Amino acid sequence: MQIQRAIITAAGKNQRQLPLQTLVDRDGQTKTALAILLEEVIDAGIDEVCLVISPGDQAAYETAAGHLANRLQFVEQSEQLGYGHAVWSAREFAASQPFLLLVSDHLYVSGEQRGCAKQLIETAIAEDCAVSAVQATHESKLPNYGAVGGRLVPARRGLYEISEVMEKPSPTQAEQSLLVPGLRAGHYLCFFGMHVLSSQVMELLDADLKENESSVHLSSALSRLGGRQRYLAYELDGRRYDIGDKYGLLTAQLAIALDGQDRDEVLTGLVELLVTSRK
Amino acid sequence: MQIQRAIITAAGKNQRQLPLQTLVDRDGQTKTALAILLEEVIDAGIDEVCLVISPGDQAAYETAAGHLANRLQFVEQSEQLGYGHAVWSAREFAASQPFLLLVSDHLYVSGEQRGCAKQLIETAIAEDCAVSAVQATHESKLPNYGAVGGRLVPARRGLYEISEVMEKPSPTQAEQSLLVPGLRAGHYLCFFGMHVLSSQVMELLDADLKENESSVHLSSALSRLGGRQRYLAYELDGRRYDIGDKYGLLTAQLAIALDGQDRDEVLTGLVELLVTSRK
Repeated sequence: MQIQRAIITAAGKNQRQLPLQTLVDRDGQTKTALAILLEEVIDAGIDEVCLVISPGDQAAYETAAGHLANRLQFVEQSEQLGYGHAVWSAREFAASQPFLLLVSDHLYVSGEQRGCAKQLIETAIAEDCAVSAVQATHESKLPNYGAVGGRLVPARRGLYEISEVMEKPSPTQAEQSLLVPGLRAGHYLCFFGMHVLSSQVMELLDADLKENESSVHLSSALSRLGGRQRYLAYELDGRRYDIGDKYGLLTAQLAIALDGQDRDEVLTGLVELLVTSRK
Repeated sequence: MQIQRAIITAAGKNQRQLPLQTLVDRDGQTKTALAILLEEVIDAGIDEVCLVISPGDQAAYETAAGHLANRLQFVEQSEQLGYGHAVWSAREFAASQPFLLLVSDHLYVSGEQRGCAKQLIETAIAEDCAVSAVQATHESKLPNYGAVGGRLVPARRGLYEISEVMEKPSPTQAEQSLLVPGLRAGHYLCFFGMHVLSSQVMELLDADLKENESSVHLSSALSRLGGRQRYLAYELDGRRYDIGDKYGLLTAQLAIALDGQDRDEVLTGLVELLVTSRK
């Protein structure tokens, strides 16, 4: 199994401006959120990236990608028919190969040497199957994420066999279907914003789109994927930061800076600011 | 003296994207930097704002201004001939009236009830003359700012008669010409990024442009303004945050948040982040 292509969805109405925001990366360089995400993907061994965008956004994204723009292809999502439809829009790019799938409104800080995307890809290659990255997440945040139920793969740290996938479950639904032995009480395995998926997902989405013309979730296709082939969840060593949250950019920037070369400078600035801020 | 018009310069090559960046304001609302700045200006009693932009940027700025877009007029700076030329580009908008002038890459946190622009405008009205806001700034930051020399106006807190204006002076130049009695050692009065200026500045810029066709600073016109009319510097109660600095957006966002309604939430998030960030 080789994974050389990535699809990044960036067509959501409220998410379109987020990848264009400016941050300072771990290396101290000022970049757009898109450039930070693209570097994560390319460091993981990906050659080509397809961005699913709203019509008219290509020029702004090319500028935001900087020197990585030559790795990009663009597909316009002509109608807003849900996240599943956005992914399906890139089916020709995926070309029957497994692919890395990312959202464009998350940034990642890895807890180890390898980036988060690289950890995920290496796990998918080792297990030779589709793998969704997940993070143990408190039930109060269930309204924001897709979540999975399952059980630990014996003798594999952080790897789970997925039995169920639900989109933004209620706490009651989660308690009934998504309890995972071994997690802290009140915590569930929520999607991390990156997956390695097989091309069969495109076929499942195709079927969903024929049945449902208004809105297609990825989760429903993923929940059927597990019935057809081996499909795992992987709790990798890292954290996701949703830059679309209120204070999401602030939190992501701080997390990246505290993990990077300017940690001391930023901590010093933080203390100065706390001293000068009154109340 | 009435001040109803503001000019905001936003055509600088490296500054064009900054007003489009997203932050959370003191009121907890997510806005662009431009919208935050426009609210500051309009809260200070300004009716109409002229944005000096690079050709082609109008649509992006209109979107970024949101519901305040109807207060905006646009002037394109066709050539990059310096900050003085950018200001001069809006001479027809100023229409022989005094005007508030702001840079577009600073955000402000006031130390009192009134915003920074309002403090400045009320001072200019009370003194009935041109006034530049200044902030006592350490000499290490002189390369970033225009600076003034002068002496305190008797019995007026924070008001200085300006004797000299210099653009980005060296430490030696500053020590020779810009020492201001009463400031801490190693500190100078640097521009804060907002001025109330008389229309005579436009005439001075006009003369400068006829003499010098390559690049015109505002500082040189301001240094001659003091010889012709009363011209003061005002150390107002507030802080400027240059969002074009490295980590400038982070620092501005933190300063605004710590001054706003979400202070406790943001402080809590900060502590959580410091706990989870290793090293």
